[in-house]
Amino acid sequence: MATGKINVSVENIFPLIKKFLYSDHEIFLRELISNATDATLKLKHLTDIGETDVKYGNPVIEVKIDKEGKKLHVIDQGVGMTKEEVEKYINEVAFSGAEEFLEKYKDSAKDSGIIGHFGLGFYSAFMVANKVEILTKSYKDDQAAHWVCEGTTDFTLEDADKKERGTEIILHINEEDEEFLEENRIQELLVKYNKFMPIPIKFGTKEETLPLPEDAPEDAEAETKTVDNIINNPSPAWTKQPTDLEDQDYKDFYRELYPMQFEDPLFHIHLNVDYPFNLTGILYFPKMTQDMNIQKDKIQLYQNQVFVTDNVEGIVPEFLTMLRGVIDSPDIPLNVSRSYLQADGAVKKISSYITRKVADKLKSLFNNNREDFEQKWNDIKIVIEYGMLSEDKFYEKAQKFALYPTVDNEYYTFDELQEKLKDNQTDKNGNLVVLYASNQDEQHSYIDAAKAKGYKVLLLDSPIISHLLQKMEGEKEKISFVRVDSDQVDNLIKKDEEKISKLSEEEKEKLKADFEKVIPKEKYTVQMEAMDSDAAPLLITQPEFMRRMKEMQQTGGGGMFGMGNMPEMYNLVVNTNHPLISEILNTKTEKKQERLIKHSLDLARLSQNLLKGEELTNFVKRSFDMVK
Amino acid sequence: MATGKINVSVENIFPLIKKFLYSDHEIFLRELISNATDATLKLKHLTDIGETDVKYGNPVIEVKIDKEGKKLHVIDQGVGMTKEEVEKYINEVAFSGAEEFLEKYKDSAKDSGIIGHFGLGFYSAFMVANKVEILTKSYKDDQAAHWVCEGTTDFTLEDADKKERGTEIILHINEEDEEFLEENRIQELLVKYNKFMPIPIKFGTKEETLPLPEDAPEDAEAETKTVDNIINNPSPAWTKQPTDLEDQDYKDFYRELYPMQFEDPLFHIHLNVDYPFNLTGILYFPKMTQDMNIQKDKIQLYQNQVFVTDNVEGIVPEFLTMLRGVIDSPDIPLNVSRSYLQADGAVKKISSYITRKVADKLKSLFNNNREDFEQKWNDIKIVIEYGMLSEDKFYEKAQKFALYPTVDNEYYTFDELQEKLKDNQTDKNGNLVVLYASNQDEQHSYIDAAKAKGYKVLLLDSPIISHLLQKMEGEKEKISFVRVDSDQVDNLIKKDEEKISKLSEEEKEKLKADFEKVIPKEKYTVQMEAMDSDAAPLLITQPEFMRRMKEMQQTGGGGMFGMGNMPEMYNLVVNTNHPLISEILNTKTEKKQERLIKHSLDLARLSQNLLKGEELTNFVKRSFDMVK
Repeated sequence: MATGKINVSVENIFPLIKKFLYSDHEIFLRELISNATDATLKLKHLTDIGETDVKYGNPVIEVKIDKEGKKLHVIDQGVGMTKEEVEKYINEVAFSGAEEFLEKYKDSAKDSGIIGHFGLGFYSAFMVANKVEILTKSYKDDQAAHWVCEGTTDFTLEDADKKERGTEIILHINEEDEEFLEENRIQELLVKYNKFMPIPIKFGTKEETLPLPEDAPEDAEAETKTVDNIINNPSPAWTKQPTDLEDQDYKDFYRELYPMQFEDPLFHIHLNVDYPFNLTGILYFPKMTQDMNIQKDKIQLYQNQVFVTDNVEGIVPEFLTMLRGVIDSPDIPLNVSRSYLQADGAVKKISSYITRKVADKLKSLFNNNREDFEQKWNDIKIVIEYGMLSEDKFYEKAQKFALYPTVDNEYYTFDELQEKLKDNQTDKNGNLVVLYASNQDEQHSYIDAAKAKGYKVLLLDSPIISHLLQKMEGEKEKISFVRVDSDQVDNLIKKDEEKISKLSEEEKEKLKADFEKVIPKEKYTVQMEAMDSDAAPLLITQPEFMRRMKEMQQTGGGGMFGMGNMPEMYNLVVNTNHPLISEILNTKTEKKQERLIKHSLDLARLSQNLLKGEELTNFVKRSFDMVK
Repeated sequence: MATGKINVSVENIFPLIKKFLYSDHEIFLRELISNATDATLKLKHLTDIGETDVKYGNPVIEVKIDKEGKKLHVIDQGVGMTKEEVEKYINEVAFSGAEEFLEKYKDSAKDSGIIGHFGLGFYSAFMVANKVEILTKSYKDDQAAHWVCEGTTDFTLEDADKKERGTEIILHINEEDEEFLEENRIQELLVKYNKFMPIPIKFGTKEETLPLPEDAPEDAEAETKTVDNIINNPSPAWTKQPTDLEDQDYKDFYRELYPMQFEDPLFHIHLNVDYPFNLTGILYFPKMTQDMNIQKDKIQLYQNQVFVTDNVEGIVPEFLTMLRGVIDSPDIPLNVSRSYLQADGAVKKISSYITRKVADKLKSLFNNNREDFEQKWNDIKIVIEYGMLSEDKFYEKAQKFALYPTVDNEYYTFDELQEKLKDNQTDKNGNLVVLYASNQDEQHSYIDAAKAKGYKVLLLDSPIISHLLQKMEGEKEKISFVRVDSDQVDNLIKKDEEKISKLSEEEKEKLKADFEKVIPKEKYTVQMEAMDSDAAPLLITQPEFMRRMKEMQQTGGGGMFGMGNMPEMYNLVVNTNHPLISEILNTKTEKKQERLIKHSLDLARLSQNLLKGEELTNFVKRSFDMVK
């Protein structure tokens, strides 16, 4: 039996690293600035713990474009490297100096913010540059070094006469990558990836207007001075303690994240946990619209203040991807797939931690200022309702703060609602019937009729509401939700009262036959009801069950297979106690009776938004003639 | 000056390859089956060109789960490897045997379908297995070899006594990856990635019902037999020549791609090009709905019959991502980012080739069977209109087949429409005015009025139509589109006729003042018009420009900034020639006049779908009382 060692040849692997290591060329700048940041943070750590008496000062990282020379420079004032260190860290692909440093100083450097992991970042420079130079001078050595590599596996390394401590990377940008010599492009990348990194990043200069002296004459022109253009905010709000931040600080940070956003967020949630995983961040509730998809994917994911992605699918539960803000965690495995993420134990914990924090925040907002919470309800309900539907833990917690508004702008929790309704809205079988409307305009006459009975009518208009009601009915005992237009008002909540009909059974049968002669059978089921004499004479209703199943089918599954395409079915309720109905019954000429029935049906259809097109045009014409 | 060689140590790079090479663990199976396929195709090629007299036969690739042993086997009957070849291809990471083979046989093997590129695929096995074995016997050697590696860089290699030619890979699946020992999971992966690969893939067996003999008695039970369960269709339709396929073959293949899809596609487009890039595929036009987002991302991208992704963003122009089907190209760089793809020259060419092919197909469908094309128009217009809006080249080509349907189901091309309308619908300034409606029901009375003048009214109801009309008006000369409800019918197309008003100027002024006393000014601008006496007495219109700008704002930008949130503004057109208006003018009691105006306004609002909520409820009540 032979044993051996698997071998990797640099010649084979180097092109692959250059081509495929990162899916996006632009990443190179993020990687180089991460290295520069690490070099600076290392120096800071060493001065902090007294390992060197070099002065730390106020180091910056500078990015410079040399358009003529077709070069891009990244310059730091960090630890620098000796010639030996260049040999060790640069010439050995995939050997991470950052990991080594963290290993060496593991007790003290735990929170130093050092980013590097795999020792590959530097090589991403070769994605955009065929020739790369390193000019570097270590804090512990007076002799600077100069390393040059032209994209093959050969390099040269010699002494150099760099004066300042630190490292300068010089990229000779490829012809096909010249976009990276454009100021706008580099500015864009720096803002995208490095806006919140911990060491100041300088990119060129800018003019700043000086304030006028107090005694300046009115026509004095303000002077300007040239200052460094610092790209980043090295201490973003999420890295601070909540106790050190005012409400205004959170709003200002929201503006920093979303400069194009004019509206203030409704409220924020500061995340801060270090066991069993590390996670900081701030989430904001913006005003929501009904369209869930539009507002997704605004949360930014960072790793040690380096921007990674704005796709947090799998890390944040889906219903919370409608929120905004940042999440920063060194513990999220970044290069692996989403499907893998979803199965990862640590990620699952993060996701449920975030869910819990959001639920706790909502509960405390509700407890501390209910009036304010009620006012915000319409803007946040879509998130809460979607969360209740999709996460059972959140559903449980939401019992304490989820609100059920009535058409008259009263807001109840479910417990309060139950208490409020139980006397008047319990049916003869002991079921509590909750009435609701989905549209105050379209269901106005039905809402009116229910309110006249002293019933409360909820206004539930989210697109996913039928799914949520279905879930609640399944989970709660003896509760049912019924839309106000699903039956005539006396049948919505069936009680033991018997309504007396003015008409005899025979009269009712004749009347029904009269109606069925005129009304299309395939659309309406005629139903005789003894209602109040001042209720509507004719009424169109749509049974709850069928309608809800159809709606569930149309809003993403559930319901019953095939129901989404079923034709609409309505009941035509004839109020046998209404004088107009008696008149219709007693009309002798068939023609006149037909006209009365049709005109009444048109009016009933108007109330249910069913009179349209030619029939509406004819109705309007006829009505104009009647006025004349 | 020192020179040197950059070094990669296996110990450092190996864990990275295992962890980060592929974003998704499940990819390992695709890679191993690709290798098995290559090994088989190599043998096929060698027998084809007479380099060996081994019999090719009917080789299959077999995938086997050994649940107890926690092993997964992938077995092929291809070329196999000698001990020396194992040393060369396996023990050297990133050395591609496939590339070497293609280089050696470059003239004859160009179309052999060999997949491998980078020599890394095999190592993906270590993403799910800590121990991997290879049992292999070359077609040119009697001695089989056995290679074992336990996930470090150490391996063993010894002689083995495998009898059959080919290679068997044995994965000892990690504990945390035991999902890959589940039959369902493996079946799912094989169907997802390998459904159309060129060598038959066997995964277990299945029962097949035998046909009954013709003379079988009526109560005979059908016999079953156990057959190999072959996962894939090795010759999918897109790899064949269009001339070898019938219409039914395309439909059958659609069913193969989308087994859950019950409707037939409307038509297909067979793509087949080998210069300046290689691309084959079949695109289908399914029935479209109005919601563009729902139907995106159904096109599957393959590379040499290996499934890659169903996200073809950047490769297919956006308006065509609503189509379905497959695209297969070895020329699309697969591992690079989307933003890079969009800038890539080859990809741009692919995208414009596909656009051109689709346009050509649509044109030939239109030319060959116009009636059929008209019937399909409603189901395909969203794609064509979106394409016209977003791709100028497609816009040009679409002039020959884009249709403009009228509310009466006549279909015109724009040239035909122009010819048809020019006599009756040219206004006094020489502009051709094209009238349209967006909803036949809601705008019925306005459509009616326009048709009474002999005008054609188009039915244009796509959500993006206002953007397209805006583009067409900009691009064509002396054409304008006007919705039927944007003014009273005589003003829609202004001609040199002067309408005589029955009312004097003073009467008109008084009437206007009377109306303005009752009608809310902030909602309606009262406008006196001398119209036909049998036209509506009162009419609500909404000027084209404002409405269109609002619509454009609401459907994704364009239009004018801020217009999306402007309140709706309407004109109230008073027909001074209508008897009812005279009656209103001459009504002496203010109260009665007010009642008449309000009721008439309600009727006008009904025609424009503006009477809602409480006002509608009151109107219906009032009308029921009037009937009684």
